[in-house]
Amino acid sequence: MSNALFNKGIAHWAKQVREGELSFKETVQTCTANIHADESLGAWEVIDEPAAIQSATALDALLASGTDLGWAMGLPLAVKDIMRADGFPLTNGSNANTEHLVGPEGTIVKQLKRAGMIVLGKTKTVEFALGVTGQNTSRGTPWNPCDRDVQRIPGGSSSGSAVAMAANHAGLALGTDTGGSVRIPAAFNGIVGHKTSVRVWPTDGVFPLSTTLDSIGPLCKTVADTALVHTLITGEDVPTPVPINGLRLGIPQEHFFDDLDTQVADDFDRALNALINAGAVAVPISYPEAAERATLVPTIVPTELLSTLGVSTFKNIQSGMDTITALRAEHGLSVTAVEYKQALMRQQELIKLANATFEHVDCWISPTAPFVPMPYADLENDELHKRALNASWNVQPGNLAEFCAMSLPMHSSQLPTGFQIMLPHGKDAQLIAIAQSIETLLHSTHGTTV
Amino acid sequence: MSNALFNKGIAHWAKQVREGELSFKETVQTCTANIHADESLGAWEVIDEPAAIQSATALDALLASGTDLGWAMGLPLAVKDIMRADGFPLTNGSNANTEHLVGPEGTIVKQLKRAGMIVLGKTKTVEFALGVTGQNTSRGTPWNPCDRDVQRIPGGSSSGSAVAMAANHAGLALGTDTGGSVRIPAAFNGIVGHKTSVRVWPTDGVFPLSTTLDSIGPLCKTVADTALVHTLITGEDVPTPVPINGLRLGIPQEHFFDDLDTQVADDFDRALNALINAGAVAVPISYPEAAERATLVPTIVPTELLSTLGVSTFKNIQSGMDTITALRAEHGLSVTAVEYKQALMRQQELIKLANATFEHVDCWISPTAPFVPMPYADLENDELHKRALNASWNVQPGNLAEFCAMSLPMHSSQLPTGFQIMLPHGKDAQLIAIAQSIETLLHSTHGTTV
Repeated sequence: MSNALFNKGIAHWAKQVREGELSFKETVQTCTANIHADESLGAWEVIDEPAAIQSATALDALLASGTDLGWAMGLPLAVKDIMRADGFPLTNGSNANTEHLVGPEGTIVKQLKRAGMIVLGKTKTVEFALGVTGQNTSRGTPWNPCDRDVQRIPGGSSSGSAVAMAANHAGLALGTDTGGSVRIPAAFNGIVGHKTSVRVWPTDGVFPLSTTLDSIGPLCKTVADTALVHTLITGEDVPTPVPINGLRLGIPQEHFFDDLDTQVADDFDRALNALINAGAVAVPISYPEAAERATLVPTIVPTELLSTLGVSTFKNIQSGMDTITALRAEHGLSVTAVEYKQALMRQQELIKLANATFEHVDCWISPTAPFVPMPYADLENDELHKRALNASWNVQPGNLAEFCAMSLPMHSSQLPTGFQIMLPHGKDAQLIAIAQSIETLLHSTHGTTV
Repeated sequence: MSNALFNKGIAHWAKQVREGELSFKETVQTCTANIHADESLGAWEVIDEPAAIQSATALDALLASGTDLGWAMGLPLAVKDIMRADGFPLTNGSNANTEHLVGPEGTIVKQLKRAGMIVLGKTKTVEFALGVTGQNTSRGTPWNPCDRDVQRIPGGSSSGSAVAMAANHAGLALGTDTGGSVRIPAAFNGIVGHKTSVRVWPTDGVFPLSTTLDSIGPLCKTVADTALVHTLITGEDVPTPVPINGLRLGIPQEHFFDDLDTQVADDFDRALNALINAGAVAVPISYPEAAERATLVPTIVPTELLSTLGVSTFKNIQSGMDTITALRAEHGLSVTAVEYKQALMRQQELIKLANATFEHVDCWISPTAPFVPMPYADLENDELHKRALNASWNVQPGNLAEFCAMSLPMHSSQLPTGFQIMLPHGKDAQLIAIAQSIETLLHSTHGTTV
């Protein structure tokens, strides 16, 4: 029995179970064995192995009795530890007790559980989900499994969820994406991350980092898995994969290709060439406003985090917080109401400007992060740490434009890199259909390993 | 020909026209004659009499030819001068040029014009619609026609629209209500004012005082007129008037009855007694959160006004602005982003708390303003001016709760007072149906003059 049960996707695993090749209990046992073998990765905040085994055993009996709940039945689920899941503690990635700031178990966790998934446990997160490198000096930083020798950053803030998926600890992981927190760790860990359109997946039961930008999203091994989850949550079917021939790929002429690592630039060029060879059309688009992420996100997000925490609570816990998160949050204290409101107004203009480009293209594409996951030790160096914080360079323009977006693996060497596809708000099904075609092409042309 | 063509409502007037008792041209001429006779009231910023006569003449010919556009055909319309209307200047009540801050003529003005209404002109407003007494030291304060001897405050910010309607200058007037600006002047001028549910009537083409709270609303002579306008704008029919017998009237136990003028308290008691005698049930409700208007509105509205104006523009024009408006707006400079965001979050809680009371009642009722329209000269006195600013005491809780609400005349003596009916967001049709029954009862029982 492989320890990588989900590399060919959830449907493949579900079929194996129905064919008697393995049980739900064996599935859970494989996952927990992987988790135990990988304790040094530090992907998990907490797991409940006995409860998971108990659920899996019951589901095995149910399936044997002739009741099949469908593909989600018995699937081990990893939940980012800023989301409430009944029976588990909730840290929000912090040593301060902020559990009371999150409501009861939310719609999404409930829906996945009702479909038959088994919550294995809670995964590590950047403190309050505010951070892009994955570092959390409060409760520990997961180790990126792409390199078992040198500790590399996992990306954040859904660091543990991405590491757990990459290391075969679960069949599906939930993350959240406020400023790239699903896509960056997906890219750094060589998996698929779907940042859903804001407000489409209800965010009740999730720590409110930013009521303006928060979105939930799945971290998966394949694009087909995101299609399954999309249909389960929204009830909307995903169209069949679109032909690459004639697909109009919007290539931003500004911002998105600044300061790329050589490997990232090379991986992207190879992917783009493969697409063009298959008949896709590269269409230059102009959206210099992408650069405004540098001012708008730090105006909106820290303000909204402090509004959730309360200023006095923040000041009380600040010294015990992750250093970088505390610094970023502290910035919110000096933002004026007018600056914040004007940032929101400007965001509305950016949404219109960004959407207008879709008259001429089917999607935008770019590298997900500008660099490969760097050694964790690099964060000690001020210059390199500054660069690490730019992991969100290419993802936050999509948050501000209210895009849905996906990161797919595009590397063919050891260090993962991500290929980002972006579509306007609400076009998640179309995004997935395009991503499926691109994933198939990248597999066949340069052997990207998912 | 009466100079008060619309006292019996728009439908009555429209019928008279169809019966040949008067023409559209004569209607316009009556209105403009009233306007000229009343120049001392200062209700209008600008009118275009020749254009109105020309339109009316053409509509007379059209009707004579057999084409009837319906009840709105040829109705003289007064537009608050924070709304764009093609062919007219736009001052936003300010001596500073801020016309560029308002987009092209908006949906509502266009809809009313397409239905056949004739824009007579633009009515005076408090500067940037931020003010409740009606005072505008920049461009003039209209004189409340309830007292032709002593100048009394008209209420704001839709001061000119209410005065124009009360003085028979138009058949319908548009106002806006961000913190009571339709209901207060309706109450002070003895007419009907409907604050529509926020976001239901599109606010494009209107000066954005507060994107959170701005709503447009009609000022009319009768509740039946608000029903006509509601159906025209929303396409939704208004139910037949509801029976008073069994109507559950929510009476707030806190806040709404603090510090009432004797006449206001007496007028309200008489109205309530009439309702109870007709079978209505008074149900005490508790909503102490109403008092939070005192902190939430000054946190939200000045911030949003300054975000529209821009801080540097505000500082440049501040010294030339209406003194009180400038002071209120200036407060927005010192609001922090967290205070503002927390105010918005608190507002969401208030909406839930307020709506929860409707499990037990059909509507809330209260006096609209706590006092009768005071002499304008009283504003010179600091204590009295402070009290005048409390004109919004009973109306702003509804803005924050996202209620729809209406003010009806409830006085039987010279100085107008208003009876306020409040329902949850989106229940405008039901509000109108209830208001029609209450209006009929108040007319029959104590001869309120509309």
